[in-house]
Amino acid sequence: MPHIELPPGLPGIRGPMAFRPETARPLNELVDVLLRGPHTLSPGERELIATFVSARNDCQYCQTIHGAIAAHHLQGDEDLVAQVKRDYEHAAITEKLKALLVIAGKTARDGRSVTPYDVERARAFGATDLEIHDTVLIAAVFCMCNRYVDGLATWAPDDPDFYRERAAMVAERGYLASTLPATAGAAAQEP
Amino acid sequence: MPHIELPPGLPGIRGPMAFRPETARPLNELVDVLLRGPHTLSPGERELIATFVSARNDCQYCQTIHGAIAAHHLQGDEDLVAQVKRDYEHAAITEKLKALLVIAGKTARDGRSVTPYDVERARAFGATDLEIHDTVLIAAVFCMCNRYVDGLATWAPDDPDFYRERAAMVAERGYLASTLPATAGAAAQEP
Repeated sequence: MPHIELPPGLPGIRGPMAFRPETARPLNELVDVLLRGPHTLSPGERELIATFVSARNDCQYCQTIHGAIAAHHLQGDEDLVAQVKRDYEHAAITEKLKALLVIAGKTARDGRSVTPYDVERARAFGATDLEIHDTVLIAAVFCMCNRYVDGLATWAPDDPDFYRERAAMVAERGYLASTLPATAGAAAQEP
Repeated sequence: MPHIELPPGLPGIRGPMAFRPETARPLNELVDVLLRGPHTLSPGERELIATFVSARNDCQYCQTIHGAIAAHHLQGDEDLVAQVKRDYEHAAITEKLKALLVIAGKTARDGRSVTPYDVERARAFGATDLEIHDTVLIAAVFCMCNRYVDGLATWAPDDPDFYRERAAMVAERGYLASTLPATAGAAAQEP
């Protein structure tokens, strides 16, 4: 049971976001830019970073919904998502993404543990400064989301189909539009 | 030296924010709502929560700048800020804020470590659901900021006066306006 009274029927981060739309709006905008904006890393790759960090932080809701969104972007390849969570060094992903996942995992544990060698390794596999920056920020953002979700003791559905259906909607419409449609519409009309 | 090439002369989070204004805008908007929006917790109290979490995460830049902003809001009482970082249970703050700092500290470590008892204790001292929610989210947001700042190995000035001067500007103008004045102005003019 959540620690505070949240709007019913909304699992994970969606309960607190409906409770506090003033903070949900910029939070969703941030995630939309990071995970869905124009980028040299595909949306699937960026969702894999989010999923991996959420798994490291053991956040059930976040790792499951972002894993489902990643799989949606990756032609439904749920096995690949599971493999990245379990043992990414042997997953069928690029060497560049593996090197970025090292940086993401260290950022999640403690930002100071990222070394110049980790960054050089990512560069050697072709990572740009923007990709390195966004990897660190995605990892940091999910350290926030995971703590937001678990610090308020929100609930998470068990049914994988729930996540698959929600993933399809988020992948198509984006985070802000899927979460706060009324607010998003109102904001778009504001001067 | 930062891990990636950042605009020069900007310490801490300001370097990466200038590097990536697309993510800096919603991030600053989020912090403005949380730390400066209308609230039953004063700006000084909310900055103390941010400072406390940043100190727990050992982030030099964040704990120093938010400590300076907290002190600015608290009539320049830098000793109180130091005391909250060192031993908040014996600091001259309300029992409600002490109970909220317990929740903030646990959220920073692992959201799942916040217990119903912690929340009941905060309620017994008068904390509302909104105050509990925002405490968890402030703690989560600073877990993000701390990792963003340290995961990119940004630099932090040593001179306390640097932070005092910056704190006065942020306290007066807000985070978005102090960080991205051009973008903030442009955004305000957008339809």
